[in-house]
Amino acid sequence: MTDETYMRRALELAEKGAGWVSPNPLVGAVIVKDEEIIGEGYHERYGQLHAERNALAHCTKSPKGATIYVTLEPCCHHGKQPPCTDALLAAGIRRVVIGSKDPNPLVHGKGIRILREHGVEVTEHVLEKECDAENEVFFHYMQTKLPFVILKYAMTLDGKIATYTGASRWVTGEAARAHVHRMRNRYRAIMVGVGTVLADDPMLTCRLKGTENGANPVRIICDSTLRTPLESQIVRSAKEIPTILATCNRQEAMHMPYIEAGCKILVTPEKDGHVDLSDLMQQLGQLGIDSVILEGGGTLNWSALQAGIVQKVQAYVASKLFGGTEAKTPVEGQGFHTPADAVELTRTKITALGSDWLIEGYPVENRRNMGCLQES
Amino acid sequence: MTDETYMRRALELAEKGAGWVSPNPLVGAVIVKDEEIIGEGYHERYGQLHAERNALAHCTKSPKGATIYVTLEPCCHHGKQPPCTDALLAAGIRRVVIGSKDPNPLVHGKGIRILREHGVEVTEHVLEKECDAENEVFFHYMQTKLPFVILKYAMTLDGKIATYTGASRWVTGEAARAHVHRMRNRYRAIMVGVGTVLADDPMLTCRLKGTENGANPVRIICDSTLRTPLESQIVRSAKEIPTILATCNRQEAMHMPYIEAGCKILVTPEKDGHVDLSDLMQQLGQLGIDSVILEGGGTLNWSALQAGIVQKVQAYVASKLFGGTEAKTPVEGQGFHTPADAVELTRTKITALGSDWLIEGYPVENRRNMGCLQES
Repeated sequence: MTDETYMRRALELAEKGAGWVSPNPLVGAVIVKDEEIIGEGYHERYGQLHAERNALAHCTKSPKGATIYVTLEPCCHHGKQPPCTDALLAAGIRRVVIGSKDPNPLVHGKGIRILREHGVEVTEHVLEKECDAENEVFFHYMQTKLPFVILKYAMTLDGKIATYTGASRWVTGEAARAHVHRMRNRYRAIMVGVGTVLADDPMLTCRLKGTENGANPVRIICDSTLRTPLESQIVRSAKEIPTILATCNRQEAMHMPYIEAGCKILVTPEKDGHVDLSDLMQQLGQLGIDSVILEGGGTLNWSALQAGIVQKVQAYVASKLFGGTEAKTPVEGQGFHTPADAVELTRTKITALGSDWLIEGYPVENRRNMGCLQES
Repeated sequence: MTDETYMRRALELAEKGAGWVSPNPLVGAVIVKDEEIIGEGYHERYGQLHAERNALAHCTKSPKGATIYVTLEPCCHHGKQPPCTDALLAAGIRRVVIGSKDPNPLVHGKGIRILREHGVEVTEHVLEKECDAENEVFFHYMQTKLPFVILKYAMTLDGKIATYTGASRWVTGEAARAHVHRMRNRYRAIMVGVGTVLADDPMLTCRLKGTENGANPVRIICDSTLRTPLESQIVRSAKEIPTILATCNRQEAMHMPYIEAGCKILVTPEKDGHVDLSDLMQQLGQLGIDSVILEGGGTLNWSALQAGIVQKVQAYVASKLFGGTEAKTPVEGQGFHTPADAVELTRTKITALGSDWLIEGYPVENRRNMGCLQES
């Protein structure tokens, strides 16, 4: 068994915390002694034990002299939990193998230094890319204090998100739709435009079995003039499921019925007649929202790309054709002038989901986008 | 080494004839004796030796008592070449392993029967699916006398074939574009609408290095009212590269300048104000054109799907986003009413081409399409 093998197991464990630890990172740990795994653990719930302490607590033999594999550099400061470096030293761990370095300036490299100063052997960068990807949300939020925004849509192989009549149930099959719900469980918030609420009256909940408690994302509606119907499903359920209306409407009398229904109102400046998405992201970040799935229509999606707030694109592509000059596409608005101006995606990945595909990638920051931001 | 291993080698050999044997099938053959390959061959050019005879001709030892692996059932009738069954019997081949059965009613199963009657052991269905796929064009054309139509387009991950300004150079990267040119080499004809000629003045040639001779597809322009400019690149090169104008315009005086320039004119009835594509396919089939790559705009592509002439879809998907309500998409026209009416693709396959993807699939014949055909 190599370091990579044990680290891969630690990554599997880390993943089990998805949807429960936000805004903490996902962390898994495996303790190995004489080529035998003697303890495993992961960060299970926000506010509870860290992965390292969970792994130590589950050891079937003394961890003295053992090696611990941990996907993220152990913490060395007092937060909700005491420092993990203390626990590792107290347990007599001889070697620590680390995936990602902690991006938190309070930790970055310090945990490693403390361990080395106490004579512990530290091996860094094992499956670092995979470990970094596991916590892309945490890393982004820690470094920018802005939510990690995932632009998500489902389209046909000819680029339609609905037929020309507006029918969009269903574009993709069951496997893809189940995947969407796992994502809604994984990320902190889901955002749509008021047009989606008016057209579909959705609940935007996570419909995974067995995860009803606490797993629903915060719902955010971009509604510049406050057109969301008070009788919509979202507003009527706002006392049970956190709901935010982002608006440019500053009339407090207009806010009151929504607030009474349980919604939170965030007012942003106006930008091109719409909610200023960059401002909204700053406000959401301050509220501790580390991640947002954007399930907007084509207009909101275009605004988000223009504003440069999109960190990741998830396109579910169905193996079917709708046709239609008038059928809606995932990104509308004005669009880019020439192919050279396009938003390019990098580190793309494809996954088969039943008869559909999921294509994921990360927008490359390009000059054109930066130019737009500067001009505005 | 198993039968599958040798058959896979025979398939590799068969593929070398792509672009050169139309309307014959692609066939490869491997001769094995005492677990050693003693001869290989494939059908190299239309009118030349068949794969089996080529393999026999290349044997380094006597093929007496050997096994031959051949991707398609050996022929048993006199065409451009004498029957291959005769050659196999004369060479003393002891066992014949076959991938596909020949769909040609003159051959189907007869070649196998003749061999067995002469005491040769015959094993069928080895890698049959792969062998059938290799000759999907030949099988379709043999059975229907209609060309195998591949609907091909390149789009962004948000479903655009051009920016809103009409710019489409380039949507995909070099690897994908090189693949398109290999396809143009592989198939017999390429079809566009007159709109593409007016907008881009393309040559529609195959720009693969080293295959200049004879490898260009026949160019077909759907031009219901004959608007193709006489000074377009296509018309000006029609004496060198076969060119067909499909039109509903029956005025012979209008045809003359095109015919003088080297174009062939095919007149079809009018359907919804356009060329009747089903009629056109019958005419093309009668001219010996077994395959057509359809590189139309969204309107022509929609008509082709409506007419039910599309056998395969090849969507090159670029990892970039153009945006734009007004940007063109690959299939336009009216479009289907509801998702249940959509053209579904089956047997889909994905290939990475540089930073782009190629998604391929086969339209499932559905009632909606059939209904449209019956109504018209």
